[in-house]
Amino acid sequence: MICMNLNYMKVKESYLFADIRKRIDAWLADHSGQRILRLGIGDVTQPLTPSVVKAMHEAVEDQARAETFHGYMPECGDPQLRSLIAQWYQKRNIPVEADEVFVSSGASDELGDILHLFDRQMPAMIPEPAYPAYADANVMDGREIIFPDTDMENGFQPLPPEHDVQALIYLCSPDNPTGAVCTRECLEKWIAYAVRTDSVILFDAAYESFVFEENIPRSIYEIPGAKECAIEISSLSKTAGFTGTRCGYTVIPMELKRDGMLLNAMWVRNRTTRTNGVSYILQKAAMAVFSEQGQKEVAELHEVYRANAKAFMKALDEAGLYYAGGKNSPYIWMKCPEGKGSWETFDILLKQAQIAATPGAGFGESGEGWIRFSMFASKEDIVEAGRRIIALRNEKYF
Amino acid sequence: MICMNLNYMKVKESYLFADIRKRIDAWLADHSGQRILRLGIGDVTQPLTPSVVKAMHEAVEDQARAETFHGYMPECGDPQLRSLIAQWYQKRNIPVEADEVFVSSGASDELGDILHLFDRQMPAMIPEPAYPAYADANVMDGREIIFPDTDMENGFQPLPPEHDVQALIYLCSPDNPTGAVCTRECLEKWIAYAVRTDSVILFDAAYESFVFEENIPRSIYEIPGAKECAIEISSLSKTAGFTGTRCGYTVIPMELKRDGMLLNAMWVRNRTTRTNGVSYILQKAAMAVFSEQGQKEVAELHEVYRANAKAFMKALDEAGLYYAGGKNSPYIWMKCPEGKGSWETFDILLKQAQIAATPGAGFGESGEGWIRFSMFASKEDIVEAGRRIIALRNEKYF
Repeated sequence: MICMNLNYMKVKESYLFADIRKRIDAWLADHSGQRILRLGIGDVTQPLTPSVVKAMHEAVEDQARAETFHGYMPECGDPQLRSLIAQWYQKRNIPVEADEVFVSSGASDELGDILHLFDRQMPAMIPEPAYPAYADANVMDGREIIFPDTDMENGFQPLPPEHDVQALIYLCSPDNPTGAVCTRECLEKWIAYAVRTDSVILFDAAYESFVFEENIPRSIYEIPGAKECAIEISSLSKTAGFTGTRCGYTVIPMELKRDGMLLNAMWVRNRTTRTNGVSYILQKAAMAVFSEQGQKEVAELHEVYRANAKAFMKALDEAGLYYAGGKNSPYIWMKCPEGKGSWETFDILLKQAQIAATPGAGFGESGEGWIRFSMFASKEDIVEAGRRIIALRNEKYF
Repeated sequence: MICMNLNYMKVKESYLFADIRKRIDAWLADHSGQRILRLGIGDVTQPLTPSVVKAMHEAVEDQARAETFHGYMPECGDPQLRSLIAQWYQKRNIPVEADEVFVSSGASDELGDILHLFDRQMPAMIPEPAYPAYADANVMDGREIIFPDTDMENGFQPLPPEHDVQALIYLCSPDNPTGAVCTRECLEKWIAYAVRTDSVILFDAAYESFVFEENIPRSIYEIPGAKECAIEISSLSKTAGFTGTRCGYTVIPMELKRDGMLLNAMWVRNRTTRTNGVSYILQKAAMAVFSEQGQKEVAELHEVYRANAKAFMKALDEAGLYYAGGKNSPYIWMKCPEGKGSWETFDILLKQAQIAATPGAGFGESGEGWIRFSMFASKEDIVEAGRRIIALRNEKYF
């Protein structure tokens, strides 16, 4: 009999960021003492904000005394936090109720876990370039993967395919890696497609807090019909600097039914069977993010990264390099100069300028010829990287 | 096409502890102001120990400053924590290496997640009475479940079935709910069975720290051959009071291969794709548990719950009631008096003595006629519950 999940044999052995780490480590081994400007992995660098820090200290103290000690948390999340998140949506006239919100350990964890709700015969539809874990997690489930077109001409907005197919559709806006944002029109097309085909959209909103322009949706539920076809997976990783602290949230609307089953009720069943809830301390930290003061603080945090993006775009403009993203996104997606490949460009940046970036090819075939820069680095590193790229250009490395 | 995982339809709608909560809430609604002695759900009541509290405050401070801030954690766990856990095994001559240790969000999360490694055609073998989530998680995966005999005469030690079948075998020692411990001989039988049938044992060691007797294994790897056939899933929930704080660990030995695949490598692939690691703050807390001082502190914690068990067993002895467990376990598994059913006994305890317990029937058919008491309550509640049970007996309710 087959014992193991043989689908694991079908995923590539190594993982994009591990590959990058290896190349950087190899280079550093030969050049000890050199410092790399790390604009590769999308990891934040600004510390947690004061409200969050205060809330966590208080929560730790609660756990230090029998009278205030908290044991098992509700599996779907602390009701107070679920309610705060729902209110945060409602304040923007987005119709989300507390029992539609689930607290998670973060978007990356949730994007894998949520697949359990779906039959393994249902294909996944992943517009590329895309976060590689989308495809990998589905390959490990044995799902077929469909890659629809992305409209390069239209700022990398993904488009539904011409043929109708029922699928689990991945949308990420602002997008990782391209920094593109889905407009209302783009989302309307996808919602119409999903409703028509009985598909389900997994809307990855991990970067929603970087949307700067008023007319760009930050939640898919800003578009009518989305509650009938979409799950929204979000995170505090980028919003509030929680990459190493861990807490996120997922919305599964009460209107979302397939095969006569309510997806919200299925997820409740999943969580009550398969978890014992997210840490009390981390949920208290998340509550602080959604407080009035917390919201002010994270807005300042976004301003830091937005200023980074502005400074970096200015440098690329000066160097005469073409890019997308950066405006409503912490990612800048640069076209590799002079027809170079993305790993080739990666190597030039690493070896000639000690800049770590992420090769576009790592996000799928359509990412070849592009490279991603993360604006989560420190201001000093961003400014210095911009300077070095201008110099590379002047010295004809690019 | 089928969109959803229809196996969800096969799991019972409601969950044991939710049922219990409902009954208690209903009773409280009619008897406002009454206090329940909560010996039902196995949730701890003692606060986190000083070393853990100190480590978490420090970790929060690290996250508050850019110079010490930590972003994404390694997906399989902080190398220092993995190393500390391996050393903790090695000190007891149990051969576990750091790269065999994975940091988790706790045993309940891991017991669900780890199923992803296995083919859904492989049956699960679950000796009952058992933690209900074992079976539920497998039903939700569509697995067939085999229930082998448990030897009631031999202190509830589970026995391998007479026929050979390849399966995912669940063992829990000290057991939830019976409080029974697997002896070396018992584990040797299971390991021989697993090796012979190419089965894999999932050894749930969440209660290992309550083993008091020297000759009882606390890890399955104390038994030769276990590294070829067993995964050990453990947790700090009961060991260090982490039920609401969340952190655990899993051991997947390098010797464990099935279908030509190395389970350890598969789990690395799973974690790197499907998580972004456990919170820095929680891993720092876990490191404190495995420090020298931390180990002293948790030993004192166990003494509190052990003293509870002693006091409660004394009361049951005085009342002339039969029970198992309690000696190497925080659970006492009592035979319902006078041939009563376990929900009937639950109701008598709730209504006549305001004691919440857990009906044995909730752990499978073979648990009918038994009831579980958790010793994780406060000393005062345990002593008072003992007194009330003696009174129930004297007043012939039992």
